[in-house]
Amino acid sequence: MLSDAQLLDAAQRFGTPLYVYDAAELDAALSRVRTAFHDARIFYAMKANPNLTLLVRFKAAGVGFECVSAGELARAVKVGMVGDEILVNGPAKSDEEYAEGARLGATFIVDRAGEVGLLPPRSQALVRVNPALNVSTHDHLATGAGSSKFGVPLAEVPAVLDALRTAGHDARGLHVHIGSAIRNATDFAAAFSRLSELRPAVGELEVLDVGGGWGLNADLGGIAEQARGAASVFGARLWIEPGRYLVAEAGVLLSTVVGTKSTEREFVLLDAGMTELLRPMLYGAVHPVRALWQRGETDIYDLAGPACESGDVLARDVPLPTPMRGDVLALGQAGAYGTAMSSNYLSRPRPAEVLYESGEWRVIRRRENVEEVWAAEVQG
Amino acid sequence: MLSDAQLLDAAQRFGTPLYVYDAAELDAALSRVRTAFHDARIFYAMKANPNLTLLVRFKAAGVGFECVSAGELARAVKVGMVGDEILVNGPAKSDEEYAEGARLGATFIVDRAGEVGLLPPRSQALVRVNPALNVSTHDHLATGAGSSKFGVPLAEVPAVLDALRTAGHDARGLHVHIGSAIRNATDFAAAFSRLSELRPAVGELEVLDVGGGWGLNADLGGIAEQARGAASVFGARLWIEPGRYLVAEAGVLLSTVVGTKSTEREFVLLDAGMTELLRPMLYGAVHPVRALWQRGETDIYDLAGPACESGDVLARDVPLPTPMRGDVLALGQAGAYGTAMSSNYLSRPRPAEVLYESGEWRVIRRRENVEEVWAAEVQG
Repeated sequence: MLSDAQLLDAAQRFGTPLYVYDAAELDAALSRVRTAFHDARIFYAMKANPNLTLLVRFKAAGVGFECVSAGELARAVKVGMVGDEILVNGPAKSDEEYAEGARLGATFIVDRAGEVGLLPPRSQALVRVNPALNVSTHDHLATGAGSSKFGVPLAEVPAVLDALRTAGHDARGLHVHIGSAIRNATDFAAAFSRLSELRPAVGELEVLDVGGGWGLNADLGGIAEQARGAASVFGARLWIEPGRYLVAEAGVLLSTVVGTKSTEREFVLLDAGMTELLRPMLYGAVHPVRALWQRGETDIYDLAGPACESGDVLARDVPLPTPMRGDVLALGQAGAYGTAMSSNYLSRPRPAEVLYESGEWRVIRRRENVEEVWAAEVQG
Repeated sequence: MLSDAQLLDAAQRFGTPLYVYDAAELDAALSRVRTAFHDARIFYAMKANPNLTLLVRFKAAGVGFECVSAGELARAVKVGMVGDEILVNGPAKSDEEYAEGARLGATFIVDRAGEVGLLPPRSQALVRVNPALNVSTHDHLATGAGSSKFGVPLAEVPAVLDALRTAGHDARGLHVHIGSAIRNATDFAAAFSRLSELRPAVGELEVLDVGGGWGLNADLGGIAEQARGAASVFGARLWIEPGRYLVAEAGVLLSTVVGTKSTEREFVLLDAGMTELLRPMLYGAVHPVRALWQRGETDIYDLAGPACESGDVLARDVPLPTPMRGDVLALGQAGAYGTAMSSNYLSRPRPAEVLYESGEWRVIRRRENVEEVWAAEVQG
């Protein structure tokens, strides 16, 4: 973990708001995944953080990519990823995504029966199963619920596999992803158990892809054991698609204190907010907060961003030493879905991203300027 | 309102997802405001939709701007707005905003006592009052609640006005903004009544700025009468800051049907989602849906976007005629906080915006391409 002094150095050099990534933490997360999942094939779900420099690092480490848009496919191509290492996923794929995935020789994750007729000729495909589970996470993240928009209902899976084969596609196996940031390992066991019910109807398979969705403090070893068990039921090779797990811990968002104020609550006003880090407002996500100063007594504050929105609060009830204008704090676990979900709302240029590696800082995304924010607008 | 044929024409010409604005509706909304508020000075809260072409139109119509960031101030300058017509607002203003606001001769809206010492010398200022009201809107939008981060508590307002004057600033008056999309006109009456309690302590004022926050179906005439009453208590000129009201109804988001699917619910899959229109996911906002096709029987659907997020649903329980891949639908009231809050999440290029005026289409923001999405990333 980067020290307070290192983070303050970054804030000083590059300004705030700033995303800082620690290469050592990136490597450590990948190591933990490999230790737990052994020789499972890893496809990084790049939606968590699609920065080209991170993609280059993952590629160099032998990790493939899961892509969910034409833009993500373009990123994979940009860093020279080969088709065999690319998955094309998403509930509403565009014509462009089908065509580009086919051109690359990627494997499609079929999300509904209706996709069979949309796939390019002789496609490689997995069928995404909707296990109809309600899991222990935020509603927005519970992609495996029966009422969610994802996947083929369990009972229809054998027919979709058959339809793929009949249409001349290579139906390589099944995919299941039950949600994101899931804390309870038994949710995975339950999903894999539902999946195993399909064995008599579908026979042996080449691939079982169990997605990702592991909370940062999840018992990876236990989940991996469950996953291997499920794969062995089908005689299948295990594939996994971690996203947030691989990048979240490595990233912090640095923000400077603009001031304090009291209404009925005590606020620390920051130069970063919903535009830089949407997860707290969107999902009620809780990010650990680290004050990079020491002063006075500890008190309890809400951290408010600069947007004119009541919901623009990055964290609530945070104990902090007495804050002053110019102090810097770090919001942790911000390497995933931070910059990825950032916006130009309020005409705010998006922040820079820097990577700390081998004792050196590298800017991997420069800070935007306002001319870039309005570049696409044609003035009348 | 643009006809189905006109909207289909736009989808055909410019592709989807697409934001379409109707100049006649923009003019009609401004007319309604002027009819209700008579000679009140209008400052458009550009955060609702900062498109430069819309700003040019508002400026030509004699409307000023409320800006809440350095980027918004830069937009005001870009379209040639003079300082006297600019308000600088926001709970956590940056040094850059203070300096630029002062250079322009804008009026600052002071959000907390601590700001008095941060204002540039001889600034013009209003003091934002926190009326400590709980109003009938979404929590995220209730900026006037006592626990919100906005404004100076009522009891402290006279002292802040005094402090401004003592420091050599021009304390022009008071500002109150109780929230957004507020449906209940009595909320405004209550806020203005709280404000009037300040009259004995603060005396006469040059300006009373009552913000905006009117729901699209609000009784503008009634609200305006309340506002004029409050202004007259202080002998003040009335200022208003409508944002969403001026642009929401004029805009629709056009999206193409990618397919349908059934899990435990019936979904229409769209080529637009949370990346183009975040309000449904962020606030539970309900946008009216208009099918631009006629076919078969009406059934009830959820409208799901292409993101791999369960929450990426633009509308629920929408009655639609039988949808087919390629059909186009329009999400209404999308002129405010649509493109403004759009993002490149999932590496999705942001949509184009077109304006229909005097029988002609004009592209006022071109569709992004993926090279622009990653332009700021320096590849390692």
